[in-house]
Amino acid sequence: MNRNLLSINDLSREEIESVLGTAAKDFLELSKRDIKKVPTLRGRTIINLFYEKSTRTSTSFELAGKRLSADVVNVRAGSSAAGKGESLKDTTLTLNAYRPDIIVLRHPHVGAPAFVSRYTGAHVINAGDGKGEHPTQCLLDIFSLQREFGDLKGLKVAIVGDVLHSRVARSNISGFKKMGMKVILVAPPSLLPRGVESLGAKVAHSLDALAGMDVIYLLRMQRERHEGANYLPSMREYISNYCVGRRHVAKGQRVLHPGPINRGVEIESALADSEENMILQQVEAGLAVRMAVLYRIIVDNAVPLAAGEAEVRNIQAVG
Amino acid sequence: MNRNLLSINDLSREEIESVLGTAAKDFLELSKRDIKKVPTLRGRTIINLFYEKSTRTSTSFELAGKRLSADVVNVRAGSSAAGKGESLKDTTLTLNAYRPDIIVLRHPHVGAPAFVSRYTGAHVINAGDGKGEHPTQCLLDIFSLQREFGDLKGLKVAIVGDVLHSRVARSNISGFKKMGMKVILVAPPSLLPRGVESLGAKVAHSLDALAGMDVIYLLRMQRERHEGANYLPSMREYISNYCVGRRHVAKGQRVLHPGPINRGVEIESALADSEENMILQQVEAGLAVRMAVLYRIIVDNAVPLAAGEAEVRNIQAVG
Amino acid sequence: MNRNLLSINDLSREEIESVLGTAAKDFLELSKRDIKKVPTLRGRTIINLFYEKSTRTSTSFELAGKRLSADVVNVRAGSSAAGKGESLKDTTLTLNAYRPDIIVLRHPHVGAPAFVSRYTGAHVINAGDGKGEHPTQCLLDIFSLQREFGDLKGLKVAIVGDVLHSRVARSNISGFKKMGMKVILVAPPSLLPRGVESLGAKVAHSLDALAGMDVIYLLRMQRERHEGANYLPSMREYISNYCVGRRHVAKGQRVLHPGPINRGVEIESALADSEENMILQQVEAGLAVRMAVLYRIIVDNAVPLAAGEAEVRNIQAVG
Repeated sequence: MNRNLLSINDLSREEIESVLGTAAKDFLELSKRDIKKVPTLRGRTIINLFYEKSTRTSTSFELAGKRLSADVVNVRAGSSAAGKGESLKDTTLTLNAYRPDIIVLRHPHVGAPAFVSRYTGAHVINAGDGKGEHPTQCLLDIFSLQREFGDLKGLKVAIVGDVLHSRVARSNISGFKKMGMKVILVAPPSLLPRGVESLGAKVAHSLDALAGMDVIYLLRMQRERHEGANYLPSMREYISNYCVGRRHVAKGQRVLHPGPINRGVEIESALADSEENMILQQVEAGLAVRMAVLYRIIVDNAVPLAAGEAEVRNIQAVG
Repeated sequence: MNRNLLSINDLSREEIESVLGTAAKDFLELSKRDIKKVPTLRGRTIINLFYEKSTRTSTSFELAGKRLSADVVNVRAGSSAAGKGESLKDTTLTLNAYRPDIIVLRHPHVGAPAFVSRYTGAHVINAGDGKGEHPTQCLLDIFSLQREFGDLKGLKVAIVGDVLHSRVARSNISGFKKMGMKVILVAPPSLLPRGVESLGAKVAHSLDALAGMDVIYLLRMQRERHEGANYLPSMREYISNYCVGRRHVAKGQRVLHPGPINRGVEIESALADSEENMILQQVEAGLAVRMAVLYRIIVDNAVPLAAGEAEVRNIQAVG
Repeated sequence: MNRNLLSINDLSREEIESVLGTAAKDFLELSKRDIKKVPTLRGRTIINLFYEKSTRTSTSFELAGKRLSADVVNVRAGSSAAGKGESLKDTTLTLNAYRPDIIVLRHPHVGAPAFVSRYTGAHVINAGDGKGEHPTQCLLDIFSLQREFGDLKGLKVAIVGDVLHSRVARSNISGFKKMGMKVILVAPPSLLPRGVESLGAKVAHSLDALAGMDVIYLLRMQRERHEGANYLPSMREYISNYCVGRRHVAKGQRVLHPGPINRGVEIESALADSEENMILQQVEAGLAVRMAVLYRIIVDNAVPLAAGEAEVRNIQAVG
């Protein structure tokens, strides 16, 4: 792995395979033991810096860090100096002065993790930046699919729903294509980004497109990011056209969703409860994959720097 | 102990004695040492899932878990995916995918812990469910009284105040009776539940009933659960009739309160500060008792399951 | 060190040197290692009780405690029983029943830490009380200056800005004088406390006074404590007269600020980003100094008490 994980494109296909191999070999079974803990990162400091509400991602990273024996400190923007008007730069420089090993960042603005990485010597992991990216979500989705399908090459996946506001869609289109999958986006035109063609995925505007897919990847309707704009003529119409239920899922197709789900909006409740979906396997995979990312981002970068390089980095980090 | 602790009625009298024996023998003195920690639950994961504000209960469980060397993760509903509209079922299934050993749940709705227990393989401990139950409070109260009085059989206890909205009252009426105590409820009719007779306790409407009691158990006035309804003609009248002061307490009587106290509402400030009350002994007992509950709920259930049983449980837990 | 650290005046000059010696010798380099952790306070309990928002101080104490291997529990007043109207006294007595070793308190009212110390057997560290004091900030500032200047005797420091609302100013005037420094306060009359002369510092009302200083100590404009009162005719006028930029700083002068900074209010952005300021050295020093304080407050007070003394203390602590 590189120094930071800001985008799924920071990883080549080979690196993805390698990190997921660590997750499978070293960490997936660990959660099933009584003693769910290894001493690997003892004495390391991980700061979870979250500027948005989150359960699954923050808890997943917190537990991943604790099960690696790291010291984990949660910083919530709402209760922080950020509430006193401190800039992201100054918050980063301050936290950096504690010399954390890793900063895990969730932020509402695209590019915040790259920005933060300029002001810290810590490894920065993007845990979701606005409509930008969510690379560990992409990794855990690839991991879940590999365990289900084996090699992903040639597999067909439909990504369905609010593509426009979805960082998961952005990371997963790239990540799925990198693994050799064929991606189609299924959404009303108003929930697709302009220039969607440049993402390298086909587009469809009806759930009819799900026929023949191997994987149906449902996106969360991000109403909290619609901010009063009317992306949809009516939610009722959206639901009648795009809410996926069991009748849309053929035998052998598997359904994924990054969570949290909106029952009755993008997924019918019966499908959410059925065995066709892999939602909970995704969550479980997430913990193992994040342990692997935390571990590998440190050990892969543990090569001593040349003296001059270290000095430069130190100066950049401090000032 | 059974798999879960949802109600004080999940424990027989013998089991109560056994768990409290563990608290007394293994954990009560631990808090007085410099090194207040044992490695018993190292590598275990405890999730404190709190949907209501709390200091004493959440801090008590957090410290109990940490002093047993478990990894403790606090999940507050306010800052969680629940805030994005996720159902309790989906939150439970998600957290369960991390394979926690124990979920400690505080929730405003009666029955939430039983509901949660259907969707997780973790042991569920009810840390207060609306007007329902609060079994660890009951256990720590019994523990505190045993240390003061020895055998509780035949002891007379008055439970005074807002019985209607009190989960503590519900657990303690059952628990005290199980230990052979005689229970009388002292409250205005409007703060008693309908069909109060079925609880197996006598009822009185005046503090005169405190005469001859061994124990006076004061309840917190749960104004936050009155929700605009007028359960009382006036708070001033309630206070003049039911606020307990030193003059109501005879020599040898002991006063308990689950906290946090409302000075000047259900308890006069002078009584709160006097040596007749056992409020702080209760808090201290709470930590030892919760350590015992966390420890025993794991070791008592550590018997390997038959293969088929494990599979069923796993399926239930995951889907 | 004494039993508590409520004010910088709880420490003599010799004690300050001794504690800062521990920080330099044992803890400053620790943060630069891979394993940033020592087992010194394993099994000890530290409660961070914060009634005000904070990132840097609370995170700094949390990390300091964790790197000393203590069990650290964060209690935020907003999500605590304090929200149910519990008094500070009762919250203290409750937390004390868990027998913590140290309570770190941030509170909006002057004197709250002294009040808390009356109701607990734990060591109390003042992490900021309203306009009162912030002794660990003062210690880390002295530490930072010593590393820069060596002996501080005779050094001239200007403390600039909102002295009226600043606990940092109060602690630092005392602390700097204790170390033999000469202190001048630079602020408009409306942002100086009445009777400022009694603080033993000179006063000036223009940035011209910065000439000839060795150290320029900028204070945060505490607008959140102005509470609607008009301490300033206009913020624009204040900024034009008192906002310090690079042009105000002569060669060899060093600039400090306790953070978080208001760029463009008390400090110009270019100065905040320049090498003349020591802001991040202060933050880094803070972690080492707080580790030293947590460690020394325990070991310096570890002498066994006489039996009677212990009993008295226990009674005071419990009731």
